[in-house]
Amino acid sequence: MAGARLSGFPEWLPEGRVVEQSILDTARRIFELHGFASIETRAVEPLPELTRKGEIDKEVYVIRRLHAEGDGDAGLGLHFDLTVPFARYVVENAGKLEFPFRRYQIQKVWRGERPQEGRFREFTQADIDVVDKDSLAFHYEVDMAVVMSALLAALPIPRSVIHVSNRKVAEGFYRALGVTDTAAVLRVVDKIDKVPEPALRTMLAEQAGMSESAINMCLKLASIRSHDTSFVDDVRALGVSDPLLDEGLDELARVVSGVASLRPGAILADLRIARGLDYYTGTVYETELEGFAGLGSISSGGRYDALASDGKVTYPGVGISLGVTRLVSVLLGKGLLAATRAVPSAVLVAVLDEESRSLSGQVAEQLRSRGIACEVASKPDKLGKQIRFAERRGIPFVWFPDTGSVKDIRTGDQYEADAAAWDPPAEDLHPRVVRMSDLPSKASPSSTQEDTP
Amino acid sequence: MAGARLSGFPEWLPEGRVVEQSILDTARRIFELHGFASIETRAVEPLPELTRKGEIDKEVYVIRRLHAEGDGDAGLGLHFDLTVPFARYVVENAGKLEFPFRRYQIQKVWRGERPQEGRFREFTQADIDVVDKDSLAFHYEVDMAVVMSALLAALPIPRSVIHVSNRKVAEGFYRALGVTDTAAVLRVVDKIDKVPEPALRTMLAEQAGMSESAINMCLKLASIRSHDTSFVDDVRALGVSDPLLDEGLDELARVVSGVASLRPGAILADLRIARGLDYYTGTVYETELEGFAGLGSISSGGRYDALASDGKVTYPGVGISLGVTRLVSVLLGKGLLAATRAVPSAVLVAVLDEESRSLSGQVAEQLRSRGIACEVASKPDKLGKQIRFAERRGIPFVWFPDTGSVKDIRTGDQYEADAAAWDPPAEDLHPRVVRMSDLPSKASPSSTQEDTP
Repeated sequence: MAGARLSGFPEWLPEGRVVEQSILDTARRIFELHGFASIETRAVEPLPELTRKGEIDKEVYVIRRLHAEGDGDAGLGLHFDLTVPFARYVVENAGKLEFPFRRYQIQKVWRGERPQEGRFREFTQADIDVVDKDSLAFHYEVDMAVVMSALLAALPIPRSVIHVSNRKVAEGFYRALGVTDTAAVLRVVDKIDKVPEPALRTMLAEQAGMSESAINMCLKLASIRSHDTSFVDDVRALGVSDPLLDEGLDELARVVSGVASLRPGAILADLRIARGLDYYTGTVYETELEGFAGLGSISSGGRYDALASDGKVTYPGVGISLGVTRLVSVLLGKGLLAATRAVPSAVLVAVLDEESRSLSGQVAEQLRSRGIACEVASKPDKLGKQIRFAERRGIPFVWFPDTGSVKDIRTGDQYEADAAAWDPPAEDLHPRVVRMSDLPSKASPSSTQEDTP
Repeated sequence: MAGARLSGFPEWLPEGRVVEQSILDTARRIFELHGFASIETRAVEPLPELTRKGEIDKEVYVIRRLHAEGDGDAGLGLHFDLTVPFARYVVENAGKLEFPFRRYQIQKVWRGERPQEGRFREFTQADIDVVDKDSLAFHYEVDMAVVMSALLAALPIPRSVIHVSNRKVAEGFYRALGVTDTAAVLRVVDKIDKVPEPALRTMLAEQAGMSESAINMCLKLASIRSHDTSFVDDVRALGVSDPLLDEGLDELARVVSGVASLRPGAILADLRIARGLDYYTGTVYETELEGFAGLGSISSGGRYDALASDGKVTYPGVGISLGVTRLVSVLLGKGLLAATRAVPSAVLVAVLDEESRSLSGQVAEQLRSRGIACEVASKPDKLGKQIRFAERRGIPFVWFPDTGSVKDIRTGDQYEADAAAWDPPAEDLHPRVVRMSDLPSKASPSSTQEDTP
């Protein structure tokens, strides 16, 4: 991590950015392979859009011009997720989009939360969503988890499992228990992993007006989990019955069996999953990175039936989001991943004197025309100094235009080469991201490597 | 352009985003080929950082939390460019960076300006900069223009010319004329293309206290331009002499001849180029898109000696920025570029009935495993309807899992194919960006194409 002098606003050093960029590239590749089109939305939304859903409103950043004369910018805030702006975009552009519309969106979002491990005030999300007009085919609730699971499997990260539940299960169940404010229960249950049980019971009694027996049932439901559809029997065994509960159990079973058949072990029915946002109406997803339970979910989302609507037409949708910044921060912070080098250059072209700088430039242009990233030395220093400069940056090769030779500064091998034909080994062409355990220990600079050629 | 219901905050439809993404991809490729490493900085900076340079301060957006209790976020604003945040990043991380440090940075910036053609309140910039410790080699002032010129040449856009001047020329010249507030003159001269001459003369007299003869000289200087170094003689012919002017003329001549030798016609010495930002101290760049003079500069930058400093050490730099949003808005607005399709999918895999959806999914997975983007039809509609769905999205191929065949819906050709071996023609694999003049007129749907196979 870089200086990060502003708490909650992380910045990466160039090597950390290589790791982040590689994750973003993989997300884009997987999303596009599955037919998701890219869009971006503006960073700001009208405050009523941002505050109409859920208890997130306390976290919104509002903006105003430093020397605002009128109130032209009044009532704008920075978006806190990419789902609310996407819903607004769909409604605004419905006449120009083809439905079902599938898009991915990779952008920063802002939340004025108290910064802590895994929680930031500015962070990057990578979202996929599908929306349709009037009604949305159920199979997309399976598809979202399958695509995200494919992405998680393609990343060089610890194993992860998508925990899934369904709002209808919880709402039907609570309703059958006589609870009227089911949203209040969901908001408490969402904190189940952070709040000790006695406090949780007090919150359920005070905030949702639940009896002790209802609280017992609620906590029993939240303890149910299974990798297959056996959770259905476990819920039935609690003896609660409600049509919405039945619908939710059926949907949840279809998601679990649908994903498990394609990606065994990738999904877990977990009845404690609630999500803090009010707009979800069906399937909800959260994802735990193995060994990092305290980090919070690295990929979350769900089905929303009524978020996008112009009053006449409704556009139901389902989506899931990768928390890129949270993931990158733990991967870098725990030293799990590293970049083979911090710069794109595979070659440093040496400069012998300022008069022959254009000769070095020509070599560089020849290499670039064949896709080999390179840079020309800043100054005509002694060649040993130029080699050490490349070494400090992790640039593997130094080119000497006078002798028409190239040196692998890791091995010291130097040989004649033609800039119109030479290629570095494929693994040296671009910086790569490697698990730290796969990285060879850095070769210490040998005097040979510092000799002039 | 999408709805854009908020003036100055542009959003693109998916086909417009394909054009923008392609420009961003090209920028990244060219920058990395030249050895620039990627970084991103947070969107916010402390207000003193944002207001200490130039007259930009009136345009800053400040942020605060909607329900701020204390003043924890007080004094933060959204960055208005990427140079000021980069300078702060360099100073904060100087101990962890290798100098000269070259980075590229592609991010959104915000300015509370009055929206008008080519001016936005939120826009994307793609910047390259090089900074060094204590002193920076002059050749980078040539290099920046060469790299940007390579990028502009790689984009499918009208021809453009980088107009270049040097602050030392202007400052030395004005100083020799007896002007004390040279910054005031620069700010007026920066408006030379927008303000009629009589008003400009009034501004120079009132805001910079210049005499009529000084104003005449100032306007004569601003009228000088040349593709070669002949501008030096034209300036000398004005009979003004000053050591700083001499230094500036020498530097400007080196930039013009250095760039022109590598890229004939790419650069123009243009003595009216001033730039609105106060932090520039040497070479300044602006770029005009041929045929779009009124649009404003699409690529600007310059040399800054004192922007990055921790009080003890100074990190001089030079950089240039591509105004991505301004460029995309004119390319889309004037219909100069278009995407061959709005979605990544090259293939729509048809679904015959819900029972065989998993069969369609298997075909899709086989295609994806070989890098072919595809999507599975949303519903088991009549095949004619599924084909029309693909057609509306511009997806060129529809796959029929029952017969193991694929149909090019543009020609109506249908043939047997193996999902483990079939490839679309290379030009259909990804959406491409084409000049509108190169795009074939859309084939109108024929009844054959709507027939079931």
